[in-house]
Amino acid sequence: MRAGGIPFVKGHGTENDFVLLPDVDAALELTAARVRALCDRRRGLGADGVLRVVRAKAVPDRPSDVDDEAWFMDYRNADGSLAEMCGNGMRVFARYLVESGLESAKGFVVGSRAGAHEVVVHSGGAVTVHMGPVRVVGESVASVCGVDHPGVAVDVGNPHLVCVLPGGLAELDLTVQPGYDATLFPSGVNIEFVVPRAPDHVRMRVHERGVGETRSCGTGTVAAAAAVLRRRNRPTGRVTVDVPGGTVHVTVDEADSTITGPAEFVARGELDPWWWDAAG
Amino acid sequence: MRAGGIPFVKGHGTENDFVLLPDVDAALELTAARVRALCDRRRGLGADGVLRVVRAKAVPDRPSDVDDEAWFMDYRNADGSLAEMCGNGMRVFARYLVESGLESAKGFVVGSRAGAHEVVVHSGGAVTVHMGPVRVVGESVASVCGVDHPGVAVDVGNPHLVCVLPGGLAELDLTVQPGYDATLFPSGVNIEFVVPRAPDHVRMRVHERGVGETRSCGTGTVAAAAAVLRRRNRPTGRVTVDVPGGTVHVTVDEADSTITGPAEFVARGELDPWWWDAAG
Repeated sequence: MRAGGIPFVKGHGTENDFVLLPDVDAALELTAARVRALCDRRRGLGADGVLRVVRAKAVPDRPSDVDDEAWFMDYRNADGSLAEMCGNGMRVFARYLVESGLESAKGFVVGSRAGAHEVVVHSGGAVTVHMGPVRVVGESVASVCGVDHPGVAVDVGNPHLVCVLPGGLAELDLTVQPGYDATLFPSGVNIEFVVPRAPDHVRMRVHERGVGETRSCGTGTVAAAAAVLRRRNRPTGRVTVDVPGGTVHVTVDEADSTITGPAEFVARGELDPWWWDAAG
Repeated sequence: MRAGGIPFVKGHGTENDFVLLPDVDAALELTAARVRALCDRRRGLGADGVLRVVRAKAVPDRPSDVDDEAWFMDYRNADGSLAEMCGNGMRVFARYLVESGLESAKGFVVGSRAGAHEVVVHSGGAVTVHMGPVRVVGESVASVCGVDHPGVAVDVGNPHLVCVLPGGLAELDLTVQPGYDATLFPSGVNIEFVVPRAPDHVRMRVHERGVGETRSCGTGTVAAAAAVLRRRNRPTGRVTVDVPGGTVHVTVDEADSTITGPAEFVARGELDPWWWDAAG
C-alpha cells in the first residue's frame, strides 16, 4: 500500500452509484481504461460511472453556456465513454462540492456536457437539480412478453416512452428489451412503466437503452411525472416518484423541471497507486 | 463527510473481492445488516464478502488449533452470515497484514473458522495459502443443458464435482444450476468444468453452490488440480489453473495442498460514519 494514492469518494443517488475523483488542478490522466477499471465491480471499486470534479475551464469541449470558473461534472460511463448529463450523479456531485468546502453557497450552477444546471443543496443532504424543459411529443406502444402497453413519448433531452399501467408492476419481466417503434425512436429509447399510488405519487420501473433495467433513472422520473400530469390534463405540477432505488420528487413547469432527491456518501479514501498505474 | 469514519481496504484475489475491516482492538460492531450494506454493490462499497482483521482471542467461536495471539480472518458472506474459509480472501488478508506492518514475518499462521492456515507472502505480492488435505472420493456426473459430463467427487473440506471436458468450455451455459446426484451431495456441490491446456495446466469454470458461476473459487482450483493429477495416475504434483478472474498455481501433496496466486489492493479509506450508523 504505497503512499500517494488518488483521492476518491464513493456515493450514490437512489442507488445509481458513482466514483467521484476530485481533480481541482485538472492533473489526473483519466483514460478510458482507468474509467473501465474503476467501474469494474470486482477488479475495481465498482460504479455506474465516474464523476471527475474539475473547473469548467479545464474541459475543452464544455458547452458555451458554462462559465469558465464553474465546477464541471466530467461524467464518464462505465464503458469509458464520455457522457452528457445524469440527474442522480449531479445530486451526489453537488453535495460533494458543499460538504468538501469547494462551494460555500447552497445554490449554484454546475456545468455538464449538456450545459449549465442550477442546483440547490438542502440542509438534510437532499439536492434539487434543475433538469431543463420536458415535452410530451406523441403516443406510442411498448410491448413486454407479447403484451402491448400504450404510452407517451417524452423528450427530456433524451428520448423516453412512459407507459402508465393499472397495476402489476412487480410482475413485469424487464430482463429482456421491451419492444418499441424503431421508426419513432431510431436511436433507442428509455422505457418507464408507471403505476399510480395517489394523484401525485407513482411507482416506476425503468429499462434504460443500452443498459437494461436499472435502480433509478433521473430523466426517466421527469418523463414519468410529465406523463402522469398530462393524464390529469395539467401541464405543470409536482409528482413523487418511487423507483427501486429510492424516492425522488419531480416538479414540471412550463420551461423547466426539477428533481429533488437523496445524495448519499458511502466512503472516501485513496486508490492504490500501483492499481492506478496498472489500470492505465 | 463527517470525520471519524471506519477504516477499510478494498481488494481482490482473482476477482473474488473483499472489503477488509482492520479491527485490531475488536471494537467494531459488525452486524449482519452492516455486512449486507457493505457488500451491496450500489448502496455500499460492494464485495463478495467482508474480512474483519482481528486477533483470534477476540473471536469466541475460534477453532481450538488457532493460537490466541494469531491474526484471525473473521470472514462474513455477502448475506451477513458467518463463513469458514476462503482461499482467495486469505491471500488478500495475509498480504494486508504484511503491507500494513501488522506482521513482520513473510511466513506465518492465520486463523479462520476452518482452523489455522500457514501462509507465505512473496516479495512480488503473490501469496501462498496452505489449504489442507484434498481427497478424491468417487465418481459422479454433472449435466448441463441435457448433456451428461462424467466427473470425480473431491473433498477439500467442502464438496466438489470436477468434470474434465475435451473442449468447449466457453460454450457451457452455467446461468442455470447444473444437474448433479443429490443423494451423493445432499448439501449441494461446487461444480468445476476443466479443459486441459498442457499436462500441468488447465482452464476452469466453476458453479458455486448457492451463488452461481463465479470468477474464481479457491477450493475449486484445488479440487480441479487433484482431479487432473488423478487422471494422470499421480497422487501429488503441481497444476496451474486459469480461472475467469486470473491464474493460480496449486500443489497437491499427500497430506496438504497449497494455492499460490495474486492478492490485489484497489483502494483504502474510511467508510462515511453517517452511512455506517444508518447501515447498522
